[in-house]
Amino acid sequence: MQRRKFLKTAGAGAAAATTVAAPALAQGQPELKWRLASSFPKSLDTLWGGAELFCRRVSELTDGKFKIQPFASGEIVPGFQVLDAVQNGTVEVGQTAAYYYIGKDITFTFDTAVPFGLNSRQHVAWWMHGGGREAMAEFYKDYGVVGHMMGGTGAQMGGWFRKEIKTVDDLKGLKFRVGGFAGQILGKLGVIAQQIPGGEIYPALEKGTIDAAEWVGPYDDERLGFYKVAPYYYYPGWWEGTGMGTAYINQKAWDGLPPAYQKVIETTADEVTLWMLGKYDNGNPAALRRLVAAGVKLQPFPTAVLEACFNATNEVCNEIVAKNAKFKKVWDIWKPYRSEQVLWSRIAEGGFDGFMARMYGAGKV
Amino acid sequence: MQRRKFLKTAGAGAAAATTVAAPALAQGQPELKWRLASSFPKSLDTLWGGAELFCRRVSELTDGKFKIQPFASGEIVPGFQVLDAVQNGTVEVGQTAAYYYIGKDITFTFDTAVPFGLNSRQHVAWWMHGGGREAMAEFYKDYGVVGHMMGGTGAQMGGWFRKEIKTVDDLKGLKFRVGGFAGQILGKLGVIAQQIPGGEIYPALEKGTIDAAEWVGPYDDERLGFYKVAPYYYYPGWWEGTGMGTAYINQKAWDGLPPAYQKVIETTADEVTLWMLGKYDNGNPAALRRLVAAGVKLQPFPTAVLEACFNATNEVCNEIVAKNAKFKKVWDIWKPYRSEQVLWSRIAEGGFDGFMARMYGAGKV
Repeated sequence: MQRRKFLKTAGAGAAAATTVAAPALAQGQPELKWRLASSFPKSLDTLWGGAELFCRRVSELTDGKFKIQPFASGEIVPGFQVLDAVQNGTVEVGQTAAYYYIGKDITFTFDTAVPFGLNSRQHVAWWMHGGGREAMAEFYKDYGVVGHMMGGTGAQMGGWFRKEIKTVDDLKGLKFRVGGFAGQILGKLGVIAQQIPGGEIYPALEKGTIDAAEWVGPYDDERLGFYKVAPYYYYPGWWEGTGMGTAYINQKAWDGLPPAYQKVIETTADEVTLWMLGKYDNGNPAALRRLVAAGVKLQPFPTAVLEACFNATNEVCNEIVAKNAKFKKVWDIWKPYRSEQVLWSRIAEGGFDGFMARMYGAGKV
Repeated sequence: MQRRKFLKTAGAGAAAATTVAAPALAQGQPELKWRLASSFPKSLDTLWGGAELFCRRVSELTDGKFKIQPFASGEIVPGFQVLDAVQNGTVEVGQTAAYYYIGKDITFTFDTAVPFGLNSRQHVAWWMHGGGREAMAEFYKDYGVVGHMMGGTGAQMGGWFRKEIKTVDDLKGLKFRVGGFAGQILGKLGVIAQQIPGGEIYPALEKGTIDAAEWVGPYDDERLGFYKVAPYYYYPGWWEGTGMGTAYINQKAWDGLPPAYQKVIETTADEVTLWMLGKYDNGNPAALRRLVAAGVKLQPFPTAVLEACFNATNEVCNEIVAKNAKFKKVWDIWKPYRSEQVLWSRIAEGGFDGFMARMYGAGKV
């Protein structure tokens, strides 16, 4: 380190405060061509847009030397096999949601969302400053990948229901297309969770094969047309107070990168996170407005339903903690962190947002 | 574009999917040395930490070729003269808060905070996707600088008060150390706004020369010791639902950069934004806990006070719109955007955060 610093200082000695031609000392970085497999289709310009931005920016930052070509879900591997493709070196990078792999280990869920967990800001704080990154890095060692936070949806909606949910009893026997962990929790309350790929949800909901389905939020949901066949649009999606994305990089490919390229990947992934949260926030309001104008019945889950789900979540998490040491290791860092984050975010953020919401309700914003 | 693509493809033809030595085609980027003047002191590891991260990362991403050395407030120029130093080329980059320059034009405030304005997520959406960046770029043309969002505090606290604020009348004659725009608004309600540099606030508050003072939030405020002399800690800081930072770059210096270095600056600034918001969110909870343990009386501004301030804000903004065309130009984009953002953020984000806050209050989180 010291030696390197000396060399740099010596080499830069002739440089004035403005542009000078590069001395021969530090020759160019290597040219690289990588492939990225995404879990998302090209039709979603938010999630897939994040993959495109990532690849374009890595190229721009390296003056075109480090090229990563993005492939959508199904082009190289199916969307739910992105992690495997990175592990086995089929591609160097994957853009995905970590919780697609909870079938391997429920611990993956921490990198995307935990039901009644952190919101997006809180997740960023946990991952960047609260030990989250390090805790997950240790977990990922067993999978031969490096994971980096990349992209996020913000708090999601609770989904589309053909019938109104008035009481906890209305959940009994409900056939609900919902992600893995939430499905497991809702099972405690009698819900029959369904796993159905995005493209098949609409016909299932239309025919009544399922009673309800959740996806992301207004901007993405509108495109899938659920509002035409299931009029009740509930919030919040308590299983995803945030839905963070993850970039996986094959460990060997990562280790072979020059340090500058490693930083290029990390910094770009952080930019994508900011960009994607902003893109969802930018697109959701108008989509929500259009949906409501089309007759959608927008309503909050009844408090008693949320409380029952909250209790069921604690029950399931405690069961997992008792039998999964890897989950417990992250949980023991994550849970007190969540508590501290809610302690704080109720105050200035919550106070500000709450007042603005009331002024909006009064027609003053 | 087509030609460049052809050249790149031809040049990379010999490259396999893994690392190869760089061909002679794209030789190295120039070595550069720049200076950054910050508005913030080294004692604040959040704000100043952002300047350090920015400079370190730019160097890392360019393999040490593009070096920017950060200087704290007062080292090259005083904290409030950073924009001027960038304009006149004393330094190439400044890290500051745009609203320090509302004395030149109130329009600067849009890049930091507007009272009862956007929260941090909403500001990011506006700046990156809602036309904010472009609107401000046009405004900055007259100043010979390029501005890029960099860093942010999150929603701030309402400050430290020696006496309780029970009614709007309690604001009359109150000597309050508060930022420029909020001071102007509070003047409508009888407050005597004071402009006092950070280091002089404590003695003024202790002696009773002023009755109240605001800074940022628990993490920064604790270090300045205000809680020892003004026990009432109010929230929210309605004048800063976010407090975004800005990096200014001298236009000529910017124009002389290779495109890759321009992107390095932008992408790094975005990473700093994510990092700094996370750092504040990470540090605030424990600081707030310590302050409350030390006897601080944490309480929300009374609703009637917030409403009076909200009305005064609208009054002042309307006065400015009527006489400042540059302000009006941004306001006309920004105001409807705020409305749409609040429309949406009440739903999934607000529904989720509100429920978690209630569970926290019930001792369940």
